[in-house]
Amino acid sequence: MKRILSTELAQHAGERVMVAGWLHRLRRLGGINFLALRDGWGILQAVIDDPSELAKLAPLADESVLSIEGVVTEEAQAPGGYELRQCRVHVLVAVEEPPPFELNKRVLKPNLDVFLDHAAVGLRHPQKRAIFHLGAGVMHAFRSYLRSERFTEIQSPKLVGTATEGGANVFPVDYLGRTAYLAQSPQFYKQIMVGVYERVFEVGPVFRAEPHNTARHLNEYVSLDAEMGFIHDHHDVMAVVTGVIRAILSHLGTDHQEALALLGVQLPRALESFPSIYFPEALRLVGEALGQNLEGELDLAPEHERWLGTWAQEQFGSDFLFVTGYPMAKRPFYTHPNPADPAYSNSFDLLFRGTELVTGGQRLHRYGEYIQALEARNLNPGDFAGYLQAFRHGMPPHGGFAIGLERFLMQLLGLSNIRETTIFPRDLTRLSP
Amino acid sequence: MKRILSTELAQHAGERVMVAGWLHRLRRLGGINFLALRDGWGILQAVIDDPSELAKLAPLADESVLSIEGVVTEEAQAPGGYELRQCRVHVLVAVEEPPPFELNKRVLKPNLDVFLDHAAVGLRHPQKRAIFHLGAGVMHAFRSYLRSERFTEIQSPKLVGTATEGGANVFPVDYLGRTAYLAQSPQFYKQIMVGVYERVFEVGPVFRAEPHNTARHLNEYVSLDAEMGFIHDHHDVMAVVTGVIRAILSHLGTDHQEALALLGVQLPRALESFPSIYFPEALRLVGEALGQNLEGELDLAPEHERWLGTWAQEQFGSDFLFVTGYPMAKRPFYTHPNPADPAYSNSFDLLFRGTELVTGGQRLHRYGEYIQALEARNLNPGDFAGYLQAFRHGMPPHGGFAIGLERFLMQLLGLSNIRETTIFPRDLTRLSP
Repeated sequence: MKRILSTELAQHAGERVMVAGWLHRLRRLGGINFLALRDGWGILQAVIDDPSELAKLAPLADESVLSIEGVVTEEAQAPGGYELRQCRVHVLVAVEEPPPFELNKRVLKPNLDVFLDHAAVGLRHPQKRAIFHLGAGVMHAFRSYLRSERFTEIQSPKLVGTATEGGANVFPVDYLGRTAYLAQSPQFYKQIMVGVYERVFEVGPVFRAEPHNTARHLNEYVSLDAEMGFIHDHHDVMAVVTGVIRAILSHLGTDHQEALALLGVQLPRALESFPSIYFPEALRLVGEALGQNLEGELDLAPEHERWLGTWAQEQFGSDFLFVTGYPMAKRPFYTHPNPADPAYSNSFDLLFRGTELVTGGQRLHRYGEYIQALEARNLNPGDFAGYLQAFRHGMPPHGGFAIGLERFLMQLLGLSNIRETTIFPRDLTRLSP
Repeated sequence: MKRILSTELAQHAGERVMVAGWLHRLRRLGGINFLALRDGWGILQAVIDDPSELAKLAPLADESVLSIEGVVTEEAQAPGGYELRQCRVHVLVAVEEPPPFELNKRVLKPNLDVFLDHAAVGLRHPQKRAIFHLGAGVMHAFRSYLRSERFTEIQSPKLVGTATEGGANVFPVDYLGRTAYLAQSPQFYKQIMVGVYERVFEVGPVFRAEPHNTARHLNEYVSLDAEMGFIHDHHDVMAVVTGVIRAILSHLGTDHQEALALLGVQLPRALESFPSIYFPEALRLVGEALGQNLEGELDLAPEHERWLGTWAQEQFGSDFLFVTGYPMAKRPFYTHPNPADPAYSNSFDLLFRGTELVTGGQRLHRYGEYIQALEARNLNPGDFAGYLQAFRHGMPPHGGFAIGLERFLMQLLGLSNIRETTIFPRDLTRLSP
């Protein structure tokens, strides 16, 4: 008999079918034994009344692997409106030891550290499963939208020869007797590839050797990167960011309703165009509102971002707000200045509910500008030879952006620790599982 | 005026339009100046007859960045059947130095090492661009097919705490004062995630510290991985492999005809089901044909694989051949034996034109089997605790496979060195660009 999935019962009403999955829960209620069987897509209910079938289940711990044959029967109380009756159980893998914590409670009880120690099993919990299913949806919608906008996917190397792009916070690798480093971002490669395809994107791991534990940082995370050529300025990049965010939210709202409901998440409303504020104006507004003198500040503090988030909500009814024009002094060397106001940059952050979600901007594109920018920061152009070659041979005005997958999920789901949106997080203390 | 792309001329016949891109070539033929302009998607031809426009171009080297306004005019001799006339040139970025080698010849002249040293510019050559465009197509079709088969995408960590899965050939990383290692594959993680989603896939970098240079190996490459639960045996995995390969070839044949034509590539014919041969039978056939005594051999040599490729072509008219049942002794510890013939395994390789393309098989799924398998190889189960936890708590029969993206492209395109199908390859000597 061919197996059907937990989500397919309704199509087989009245038939005898086979299902398979994990023993999620067995409990007796009002004299009836209900078995909840979890497969890769959902949970179904099977009524076990034959004593010889019950006897097979008696020695089993939760998470045993079963197949069950039974008749699909309409039952308003059952999840999805159907259950299996007249069941015969076949034990595929008998588990003796119960899981390290109860996977069949609506909400997981252990604290985060205990959970992460046992993530190999804990991730089976329906809420956890929903989180990473949404993560898969974010990646899919990101790629799908950019492909529709003529972007080409690239995969750039993660092992690099020099600790560039800032210098600090890179992991050294013992590379066959030499020292290599793990890439902090695909920044240089995606810019180079603008010279090839004009528009490129990459979804892949990036590595940051930050030696402190916070609720918002990981030492390895998944970066959603894009870069595009022949722009007028950073506003062209912001238009693509807006399209990407709207496409992701629309995809989640359409294809992932169940996961959102399970997590109690209300998707934000993403207007057709997101409001935007120029950095010096943002500083002025926040300073006035909070009674702080922010003149000359080079960045926004978290409390300033939060205030701006509330302001955007009140002013524009928007969960999203672009802040443009961050001071050049705080941005990386490849940042393009605002031609009309050169202490400020053609860069932006996108705030989502008052927290930074996306960073991006226009880059320098002339070889001479790169040499100047590197020398102004006491960096040696010779260390950047492979990268600079692209600019020696003609690069158009271009720009791009990056979104951290885990942080996006964390903010979307209203979670307080980024480790909750990473299947196997890497931090100061955690390298396994 | 809004820019149009090189691929959009036909839709604007008779109109004055603006295009932009790189100065691919300027040459005088029969008294007429033809400018080939390359953008991210193709090459168009512009006729420059006004002396003042020609004067702007005179000081420029190839790869200068231009925009051109002109009238779209039907011209049978022009690429795509249209060219621009009555042109005005605007120089966006003037390049003084010619590229390190001619990008406008049909075939690139420099040897591979020279090319790779200058890949940041060399990748702009139309044939190179076509290769990695096909690579993007392979990734897209891989994901798209597996999504349609209910697989969920995962992103597993590349930094791992122990040098497991074989032990040798891993890169050590200085991880904030401890030693971490770069993952050789997502094998353990994709198996663990079968317990969560049943069916998972991942596209991402893997790292192999192999200390020798060959034409077929890289130290970092992109692995297309999948794993699935509730299988009967490895034949269920082979059915998905067949579907994936057919989906990829079908996508390339439909959406990437231009790249295939530019590279002169004929796609292989992929039958609805690929022929298959059991390892001992393959040995016997090859031994007879080549007059070699192969009794007791544990693997196929490259010449044996080549012979089998020709044999499959002759016998079945197939470019693809599964070889199943490789000896347990040569397969990793998690390999599932053939229950009816336990010296052999429920594993397979897929040969494509006589060279290994895909490796896969059924895995062990019972905790006790893992303990035995590890101890039989003098491996310490304690080093695998996080991984083994999944098996302690119920894992269904499962299996999976992996395809090396670069090797797939290399074989598909008939290239002789895997460095030709990697944008920025990493090997014994090369860590940049």
